[in-house]
Formats: sequence, structure tokens, C-alpha cells
Amino acid sequence: MKHSFGSDNHSGVHPQIMDAIIRTNNNFETAYGEDQYTKQVLKQLEDLLGGDCTAFFVFNGTGANIVALQGFLRSYNSVLAPITAHINVDECGAVEKVSSARIVPLEAPNGKVSPKEVIPALTGFGHQHNAQPKILSISQPTELGTTYTPEEIRELADLMHSHGCYLHVDGSRISNAAESLGLPIKAFTQDCGVDALSFGGTKNGLLMGEAVVIFHRPENTLPDSNGIPMNIQNMEAAKNLQYLRKQTTQLYSKSRFIAAQFEEYLKDGLYLKLAGQSNAMARYLAQTLEQIPEITISKSVDSNAVFAICPTWLSEELNKKHYFYVWDESTNEVRWMCSFNTTKEDIDEFVADIKAIIASHK
Amino acid sequence: MKHSFGSDNHSGVHPQIMDAIIRTNNNFETAYGEDQYTKQVLKQLEDLLGGDCTAFFVFNGTGANIVALQGFLRSYNSVLAPITAHINVDECGAVEKVSSARIVPLEAPNGKVSPKEVIPALTGFGHQHNAQPKILSISQPTELGTTYTPEEIRELADLMHSHGCYLHVDGSRISNAAESLGLPIKAFTQDCGVDALSFGGTKNGLLMGEAVVIFHRPENTLPDSNGIPMNIQNMEAAKNLQYLRKQTTQLYSKSRFIAAQFEEYLKDGLYLKLAGQSNAMARYLAQTLEQIPEITISKSVDSNAVFAICPTWLSEELNKKHYFYVWDESTNEVRWMCSFNTTKEDIDEFVADIKAIIASHK
Amino acid sequence: MKHSFGSDNHSGVHPQIMDAIIRTNNNFETAYGEDQYTKQVLKQLEDLLGGDCTAFFVFNGTGANIVALQGFLRSYNSVLAPITAHINVDECGAVEKVSSARIVPLEAPNGKVSPKEVIPALTGFGHQHNAQPKILSISQPTELGTTYTPEEIRELADLMHSHGCYLHVDGSRISNAAESLGLPIKAFTQDCGVDALSFGGTKNGLLMGEAVVIFHRPENTLPDSNGIPMNIQNMEAAKNLQYLRKQTTQLYSKSRFIAAQFEEYLKDGLYLKLAGQSNAMARYLAQTLEQIPEITISKSVDSNAVFAICPTWLSEELNKKHYFYVWDESTNEVRWMCSFNTTKEDIDEFVADIKAIIASHK
Amino acid sequence: MKHSFGSDNHSGVHPQIMDAIIRTNNNFETAYGEDQYTKQVLKQLEDLLGGDCTAFFVFNGTGANIVALQGFLRSYNSVLAPITAHINVDECGAVEKVSSARIVPLEAPNGKVSPKEVIPALTGFGHQHNAQPKILSISQPTELGTTYTPEEIRELADLMHSHGCYLHVDGSRISNAAESLGLPIKAFTQDCGVDALSFGGTKNGLLMGEAVVIFHRPENTLPDSNGIPMNIQNMEAAKNLQYLRKQTTQLYSKSRFIAAQFEEYLKDGLYLKLAGQSNAMARYLAQTLEQIPEITISKSVDSNAVFAICPTWLSEELNKKHYFYVWDESTNEVRWMCSFNTTKEDIDEFVADIKAIIASHK
Repeated sequence: MKHSFGSDNHSGVHPQIMDAIIRTNNNFETAYGEDQYTKQVLKQLEDLLGGDCTAFFVFNGTGANIVALQGFLRSYNSVLAPITAHINVDECGAVEKVSSARIVPLEAPNGKVSPKEVIPALTGFGHQHNAQPKILSISQPTELGTTYTPEEIRELADLMHSHGCYLHVDGSRISNAAESLGLPIKAFTQDCGVDALSFGGTKNGLLMGEAVVIFHRPENTLPDSNGIPMNIQNMEAAKNLQYLRKQTTQLYSKSRFIAAQFEEYLKDGLYLKLAGQSNAMARYLAQTLEQIPEITISKSVDSNAVFAICPTWLSEELNKKHYFYVWDESTNEVRWMCSFNTTKEDIDEFVADIKAIIASHK
Repeated sequence: MKHSFGSDNHSGVHPQIMDAIIRTNNNFETAYGEDQYTKQVLKQLEDLLGGDCTAFFVFNGTGANIVALQGFLRSYNSVLAPITAHINVDECGAVEKVSSARIVPLEAPNGKVSPKEVIPALTGFGHQHNAQPKILSISQPTELGTTYTPEEIRELADLMHSHGCYLHVDGSRISNAAESLGLPIKAFTQDCGVDALSFGGTKNGLLMGEAVVIFHRPENTLPDSNGIPMNIQNMEAAKNLQYLRKQTTQLYSKSRFIAAQFEEYLKDGLYLKLAGQSNAMARYLAQTLEQIPEITISKSVDSNAVFAICPTWLSEELNKKHYFYVWDESTNEVRWMCSFNTTKEDIDEFVADIKAIIASHK
Repeated sequence: MKHSFGSDNHSGVHPQIMDAIIRTNNNFETAYGEDQYTKQVLKQLEDLLGGDCTAFFVFNGTGANIVALQGFLRSYNSVLAPITAHINVDECGAVEKVSSARIVPLEAPNGKVSPKEVIPALTGFGHQHNAQPKILSISQPTELGTTYTPEEIRELADLMHSHGCYLHVDGSRISNAAESLGLPIKAFTQDCGVDALSFGGTKNGLLMGEAVVIFHRPENTLPDSNGIPMNIQNMEAAKNLQYLRKQTTQLYSKSRFIAAQFEEYLKDGLYLKLAGQSNAMARYLAQTLEQIPEITISKSVDSNAVFAICPTWLSEELNKKHYFYVWDESTNEVRWMCSFNTTKEDIDEFVADIKAIIASHK
Repeated sequence: MKHSFGSDNHSGVHPQIMDAIIRTNNNFETAYGEDQYTKQVLKQLEDLLGGDCTAFFVFNGTGANIVALQGFLRSYNSVLAPITAHINVDECGAVEKVSSARIVPLEAPNGKVSPKEVIPALTGFGHQHNAQPKILSISQPTELGTTYTPEEIRELADLMHSHGCYLHVDGSRISNAAESLGLPIKAFTQDCGVDALSFGGTKNGLLMGEAVVIFHRPENTLPDSNGIPMNIQNMEAAKNLQYLRKQTTQLYSKSRFIAAQFEEYLKDGLYLKLAGQSNAMARYLAQTLEQIPEITISKSVDSNAVFAICPTWLSEELNKKHYFYVWDESTNEVRWMCSFNTTKEDIDEFVADIKAIIASHK
């Protein structure tokens, strides 16, 4: 397929990443992440995030999220998450199966939650008939392409901590958020009180590979809702995530091949450059479409996704030539996702095709 | 590290495999295994195994085994396995956690089990206080480098089926067994009544990637120990493994990059050629060592592992220069594992170092 | 406490039930339900339900529901249930933990669901990212005291079966439904296509004890959504529920003491007589309250619960003397639950107190 | 059945216990253990055990053990237990299913373990491929009727604590151990460093009812193997066991009926009196049998079980009239279990029958 707006994981691997893989394939290396090279690249990632955190490599995003969440969950806990969250709608019940905890879905206008949506779910503490809230999982950017400001994330972290709970950020596209906000990732994770982060790579040009990061948060010394001081809980998660990763089948034997990708990815800001391209293409697409009255951009284009409402005759005809998904059939809202290797020509051709369909429809 | 006898996953990626990855990185492709390319390569794998089976790609060996076993297990079932099995000793309790079933370890001389060891564990059927035996999981070759003959596997499959149970083969090094036995893989899986196979690749030159194969076994129409006709159970496993794979976090978005590796791996028998090299090097090492009285080869060298008992002064000194593991500290039994890219020179240098150590010790 | 409207499990044990317990305490008996007495009483229960079913005793309602549901679930399945269902709101995530499956909550006007609410959730079949719907669990009567007609249950059973799914009835107060509908329990379970029933006792005068019933449904020969013929699935559940009961910690050693209660409970329709009393008291309370304009009966009084909306000054003052729960704080809807041993005098005193509070408030 | 040597749960309910149940059936009471009566009896139990502990009522022994263990386990942990332990052989894999952790069975001469058997299993700490040892579960008395001295328990507790691990005592027959040792239960639990106790009742004359006790152990401030200070872990378990109890389906609505039994059971030492009778009958049986050369007492009779090896012709003939189990078919070792209501006449008749069989065999 020449190009796809279906998903940013329809794209392949960035050439620099591929070269890094090839370069590291020149010798024998100890396995399972116990090699110095893996440890060194993890250290680079931890440094990028401000230190005082522990990072682990995993294969994929489902794995990253489930391993991260398990670090904080016991079976009687619940995970609060936007109803639109990937963990809620797209992981086949994996969270419930692997963590034994339940998900409490929250209303999420534009994919985001605020204290208004979270506070009503911070309930049932101490009641033996109720699953005990333990962690909020938000996506940055969200499933709908929107982003949280640092202030919004800080507010959510403070809210959770004040209830003895934690904040996880599903950052499968975290680089897109950073590039879009013009902020280092540290500024809206470490600095805002986030406890755990899924740091994505696969959707932004890696072959495969994500990281789970546990922030140590030594400043949070109050007991959490389960009765463990929060800083001890975070350190316990950091210490034991290796076992949860193994049990969750996310430990990669030839770990250096994820390390090599991440080294290249973080070096000279490649992660931002790639995200910059997909973000720019999404903005360019959105701007171009603004001239077309048949199409209404339906979500704020804060990252690399464009959500739009258009007539079904348009999306159906367009789908014959271009790959993308109808997100909400009730309103015929479609999602056009740009990738690190989406080009201006891809967009121009796409828009030209849209215009041609509209012209022929009249 | 120039060379390692520590594990065959210390080796990297075979150049032809790497080229195949690079070749497939030329376009956009649908994700999550729903692309035609992935489907076509899976079909090639199924054909290699004699058809009438369903194959799925996964990331790693832990994932392959746990996904495969779950296809047959309910929480009250048990998995019989050699006490030396990887699923019993090296997966941090992942089977118990993810499948909810328990493992019943069996005595395993040389890593193998026979009806003598299995039959006593086929007990407790119908007793509500006992976990109900459901599947036997053997490794081919075993953790100790030994192999089962087709007749031995058939005998185990028949035994299990006659008790309404199933047979799984952990084939993380299945190519080594095939090359060593001089038989197609089909001859000791499909043709012997095996129900599920973990088909390995990572330890034999792949970047990462394994397959789970469910054999349909339409001939087994008797009820299993849970009361489901065995052929219906196998088809149910084949139909639903996709969900278990997803829940077990083993669904890869950019699936084509495993498919590309497998296509190359299966084409022109590359998998056998690579296994042939590691097997030959193990045999060469074992033969060479036979001349050295300080070293006793302790297990039959049927694949790419050499197990040997030697004095601790020898193994300790040798370990300073060469990477390998002491397998059993009580007898100072060591494991020297050969890889697809282990060379005659690697062996010669290793043996020369052994001889030098012995000489200096006298 | 002289009387409580808090719950029908605030009441104690009916004297006939207590006498039955005492009578059976006269000898030694084999344990764990393997005694002839337990088997004989289970047979009586199965006969009452029209035969062609298998019954098991368990301790409590949470256990009954979770054991029953597990008979049909694999980890990648989902349970559809009214959002008000006990399994959704009051069991601390026990379903998710023990079954590994997830619950999909459905809108439930008056505690009931109809095809209108269920059909939109019968989706995602065959999509690997989605939990696969497998069973609908309804309560009869519902948590809000309403009941389903046989026709409504039949419609739901047919709907589920036509999608390869199943229907479970949480009957913790099933006797109240039977008495209220004027129908044998068989008429709205067995005869309507129900697959599994939690048959309650504790809330209607037993010391403790519930039954799980699996209906065999030999007529349903089509494959279910997992690919198992439905009749084979039901028989498999019936055969293996003993293991699930044991694993779920619901196997009682001195089983005869539940059997004795059930024998007495079923004999001469005691279960209907007791339910008749609590139902009658609820109706009597509701009728009496109709004269009081400050109170609005908010749900149809189909069993032994009266839901009413009243001013907070009234409920708060009343709560000082009488035990009951505010069900919905947003509307100040309260629940007054009648028990098998609630008397007309209890109601009269309660209503007199209400009137006195109102009088003093004016 | 007039009498059974099959199990002490073949006996019924002691009359004083039954009277206590009847007495408490005189009113309405709040449910789920939130009544003052339940709380007061739990306080009595905690006081009996030396205070500084938290007790919870549950239905049965399987539930008690699994709820207690879960308080300390994460899915990557393991439970060390004698190979003969009830949790290992008789609970259908319930521990693995409900806790997600695995059991590591230990050799157990006479049902007991000592540091000699435990130390080799205290291994793998920090290795990501190995389940991390977390708690040792011993039975007091053991499954084979033997008892641990306080010194032996203290030694095991110290051993576990020194490895950052915990000690659980399965006390389904704890009263028999206390009576046999001539010591208060506190002396070999609280005073010896035990962290969790399953306190049994059902096998010693209760209708049903056990307690789980978590000792607070404020003195253990070192980090456990998961990284949580041990005293914080114990308090966390004590705080959250209510949720684990609920999820494990062990929360009883009409809790006062267990409380009433326990109040009577603990009052005036009834628990010791009942255990004294079954212990005495076991000793009397063992002493009497010493005169019979065909029978060899095979285990130390420290509680209410007599294990003996006898010819199969003897056990088979005897089994026609008396109910008991062959424990080990390989040696024809039988188990004769005495109950609180086993009488001297029951023993005399049993021994007379043995003698008659032997006489007729000659």
C-alpha cells in the first residue's frame, strides 16, 4: 500500500532506526535486558525524563500499559480511564484478565478527562462491596488526537495523590504530544507528578519497542488508598516491574535490538523530528480541508490525527482509494491518521481526490 | 562479545533474515496480522506442517507457550510438564498467572518424559478436590538438548488422547530437532498426533518471532476430559487463539515484519541450514572434548547444546574468557550452547583454551 | 434490632428451617456434597425446575453468580449485565477477578433490560481487539424490585441464543418473583430457555445456602460464539461446575446442612409462603404510603422492595428509628425492603412514625 | 452413619454451638459483618491471640487459606508449602487461580518442614525468570496429624523474616494442636512471629465458620522481598483483607451466625474441650492398637488423626463396616480421624471389629 491514513502503525520503520538495528547486529550479546547496552540506553531515557525514575523496555503498547498498571494494582482495585481509552475499548479485556482489576470508564469529552469527570469515580473507599479506586490512566495525546496541558496533568496528578491514588499516562504517541506542545516530555510527566508512563515508539517509526517508566516520587510520603506510603509503592513498582514484565510475556530475549532503536530514536531528537512530520501533516491536512464546506474538522488537531465529519457518500468513495477508518458511524466521523513518513504529496493527492469526489457528486 | 556459549539467543540476526526485514520496509501495510502478506506466510507455515492446522505469529517463546496452552485450559485444569521444562522453571509463574491453571511437574531423565512418568500424573479425574489434567507440554528438543523420536511423541499423544487430554510441543528450537532427526517437522508433530506447537524462530537467527500452531485433528471425535469432543476443542482453540493472543499482549501491530522473517526462514530450508550449523558445531565440540579426560559429556548431544561435567577449577577459569552457564552446581554440569553463527574457529579457540587451562593446572 | 427495612438478609432464620438444621444434626455424614442426602435434595430441586438440569449447592449469592457465570466464560468473553446488577456494582470486582472476563454494563430502566438495550452490546464478534460477548446476566426480581414476565425472559434467551450466547438469571430472590408472578419458577426459567440460574435462599429465611443450576438445553445444537455447540457447552458447564465451585471456595464440607434447609424450604412450598409474606408486606406498605403526598413510590412494587422518593428531612428523621438505605442520593430515593418475618405491625408502626414526622414538620 | 473415621468434618455440630446459633436468631441484624456483635466476637478472638492482630470471619478452610495468603502475594510471588499441604493437594488449584501465584512444594517428612527443607527453596530472589518466594504456609497440626513445637515455628518465622518473607499457619485444626501441646494458641502463633493464621472451627464442632487472622508485627520494620517494610505489609494485609474476602466470595451476609458460634466456641474453652475429646480418642485408639501386631502406627499421634499401616485384607474388610480412607495405597497406610463426638464406645467397637477380622483371617 503506497500510503495509509488508517493508522500510524501502518507505516514501516524509519531508515535511521533500521540502520541502528543493522549496526547492533554485529556480535553476541547477553540476553533479556541484562546487557550493558540495554542498561545504558535505559539510563539515557531516564535522564531525558529527569531521572529519579526506572525504565523497562517492552514489545508493544498493550504490554506497556498492562505492565505499568499492574505495578500499582491489586485485584480489588480499579483503574479509572476515559471511556474512549485504548485499554477500555481495544484490548479485548486484557487489563481485567492480566491485572485482575476492573476498569471504571469515565465520560471523556474530546478524549480528555478533568477533575469534573474523575471526582465522582473517586468513591467507595473503605466499602468492602466496592472495588477500590487506585489509578487513573489517561492518554497523551488522547485517542482523539487532543492533548493535555501540563497544568491539566498536574491537576489530575494532585487530585489522584490527594486520594491516595496514582496517575498513569499512556504515551503510545507521547512524542507527538511533546512536539505539539513544544515542551520536553519531562515537562508534562515527571514535572507534573505522573507516577507511570508508557513511552511509545512503534507508532512513530520504530520496528517495535516501547518503554514503561515508573517515576519514584520520593516526595509523596502519605499512605495510598491501600495503606502503603506512596513513595514506597512507587519504588516497589520500580523494583518488581521486571517480574510483571516477564509474567506478562513482554521480556524480549534479544533486548539490544530495542535498545538500539531507542538510542537512535532519542539521539539528536529523532523522536521529535518524526513526530513533527506527522503532526505537521495532520495540521496541513486540517488547514487544507477547512476550505471544503462538505467537511467539518470535529476535534482539535493537537497531534497527528485529524477527525472530521463528512457525508457518507464522500467517505465511502474516498475509502475505495485511501485506507482510513470511520470512527463513529452514528455521525460518520472519520479518522485520518498521519505517519512519520506521510508526505505533503500524500496529503495533496488525498485532498485532490476529495475535491474530485465532491465535484463529481454535484 | 565476540562469541557466547551462554545461549542461542545471545547470537544476533542472520543476514538473510535482516535483508528480508529491510525489503518489507518499503510501504504502508495494514496492521495486527490482518494484512494479506502475513496471511500468506502463515499459510506457507501451515502447509509445511501438513495443513489442517491454524498458525498465529507472536513475539516470543514465553508468549507462544502460554497462548498455545490457554487454548486448551480452563482454570481447574493442570498442565503436565517435565520438571526441567522452561514453562516450569524459567517463566516466573507466567503460566499459572495467565492461564490460571497449575503445572504438575514430572520427573524427566535427560529432559524427556515417557508414559512411565506421565501415567502416574493422569489421575484425579472426576475428583472435585483435584486439578483436572488436560495437556502435556514437552519440549522438542528438550531443555537438555535431547530429542524425542516420532515414535516417542506418537506414544505420548496417544496416551494423552486416550485420557481425553492433549499434547503440546514447545518447539523453541524445533528446527534443531528436525535437522538432527533428519525429518520434516511435520513428521514428528502433525503426523504424531500433536495438538499444539510453539514454533520457534528467535533462537535460530530471527530478530524476534515465533508461531503458535493448533492442529485441527478432525479424527479425534471422543470427548476430552472436560466433556468437549476433542476435534471441537481443537477447532475452538484455533478459532479463539486470536483473542488469547491479544489478551496475552502478544499481538504485534507491524505484523509484516515477523511474516517477512518467517517467509525467508522457511524458504529454501534456511531454518534447517541455520539449525544444521548450530547442531554441527555442538557435535564437533562434543567430539573434540571426548579426547579430554577432565570433561565428561553428560547428555546426548541431539541438538545444539552440549552438557558436560567438568572440574570447577576448569569451568571457573574458562568462564573468565568465555560466556556460558553452570547448569547444575551440585555436579558442576555446564551448558555450552552453539548458535547458527558459531564457527569452527570459535570451537577450536574454545577447546584450545580448555586445553591450556588444563595444562596450566597440572 | 427489632426490625430492619435495610435488607432481607438482616432478618434471621425461619423456625422451620432452623428445625431442619437441628434434625439433620444427629449423626455422621460424608462430606463435600458426596452424601446421598445432598444428592437427593438436589434432585428435588432439579425436579422442581423441570428436570434436565444439574444443581449444585453453594454458600452465598456472590459465589452462586460467579460459579454459574464461569461455567460459560473464557477470559476473552464478556458478561452483559444491567448497570444496576449486583455483579456490576456490589461485588468488589469479584467477577472480573475470578472469571477473568469483563462486565459490559447496560442501561437498565427500572433495573430491567430488553433487546433494545442488549442488542447494541452484541457487537465486536470476530474482532480480536474486542472482548467477545458470551452471556447476559439478569436479576429476577431485579435490584429495583421489578420482575420480568416469562415472555420478556424468553425474548432475551432467544436473542442471546441467536447470537451464540447464553442467559443467566441471578435469582437471589427468585421465590419472590415466583410468588409475585403467580407462576412456578420453572415457568420463567427452564421453560423460557434460561441456561443458568442462581437460586437464592439466604434472603428468604435460610441460615445460608444458595444453588447454582445449569439447564442442559439439548435443543440448542448450534455453535455458540466461541464455536462450541451450545448443548455441549451447557453439559460441559454442568459436568465441570464442581471444579469451579471448589476453586471459587464455595464447596461446603458439611453439605447436608444446606441440603436440610433446602429440603424444608422446597417442601410444601415454604419458599413461596415466606416470599408471599415479604411480598405482601411490601405491597401493604406501598398501598399505605399512597395516601401520603410527601412520598412517591418510584418503582413498580413487584416483589419485596419498596422504592420511594421522599424529602430528606423525612428520610433522615425516619432513619433515626428505622434501619434502611438511601438508594440514590441525587433524588433521595430510599429502599424499604421487607423480609419473610416482617409483620403488619412492623409496617403499621413504620407508617405511623412517618406520619408523626410529617405532622411535626408542618 | 453412626460414626465415621473418615474425617472430622463428617461429624455434625456440637449442641452448645447449635444452641448459640438458635439464641442469636431472635431479631434483625445488620449484615456483612458490620454488626457490633460480629465485631465484639472478633475482638474476643483477637484478644485470645494476644491482640495486635486483625481477624475476619469466613465460611470455610479453603477460603480462609486463600484469603490469608492473598494478603501477602503478588502474582509473581510463590508460596512455599509442604508437598502434603492441603493447599497443594486438595484445593483443585484454587490458590493458583485466585491468587495468581504459584506453589512451590517442599519435601515434608511426617508432614512437617524445617529450615533444611525450606532454605533450598529460598532462592531466585532478584532473578526475573523466577517466581519470587514470599510466604511459607505450614499446617498446625499437619495433614499427617503431627505438630510443630513453638520453637520450630519460631525458627521458621525467623528464617522467613530474615529473607523478607512471611509465615502463614493453616490452623484448620489449630485447637487440636493447642490442646495437644498444652499451650494457648497465642504461644505458637503470635508469640512465635507468625504473620497470618487460618483459625479453624468447622472440623471441631462448628456448623461452618473459620477466621483469618493477620498479625500486625510492628517489630518487623525491614523491607520484605518485594521491597515493602514488613510491618507496613502486614498492616496493608489487615486493612485490605475485607476486599480480598469479598472477591473470594467468602463474605457472609448473616455474619452474626458465625459470630455466635465463635463466641460459644471460645467461651470457657469449649474449643479446647472438643479438641481434647478428639485428641484423647486418637491417643486411646493408637494405644489400643499397639497391642495388635498386624497394625503399625506410622505417624506420631499428636492430634486427632491416627495413621497406621496394615494389611490390605484387614483395611478392606474393616472398610465394609467403618468409614475411613486409605491415605497411601503404595504402603496401605490408612487414616483414622477422630471427631469431637467420637466416643470411647466408638473406638472399642472399632478395635473389636479389627480383632474379629484378624481372628477370622487366621
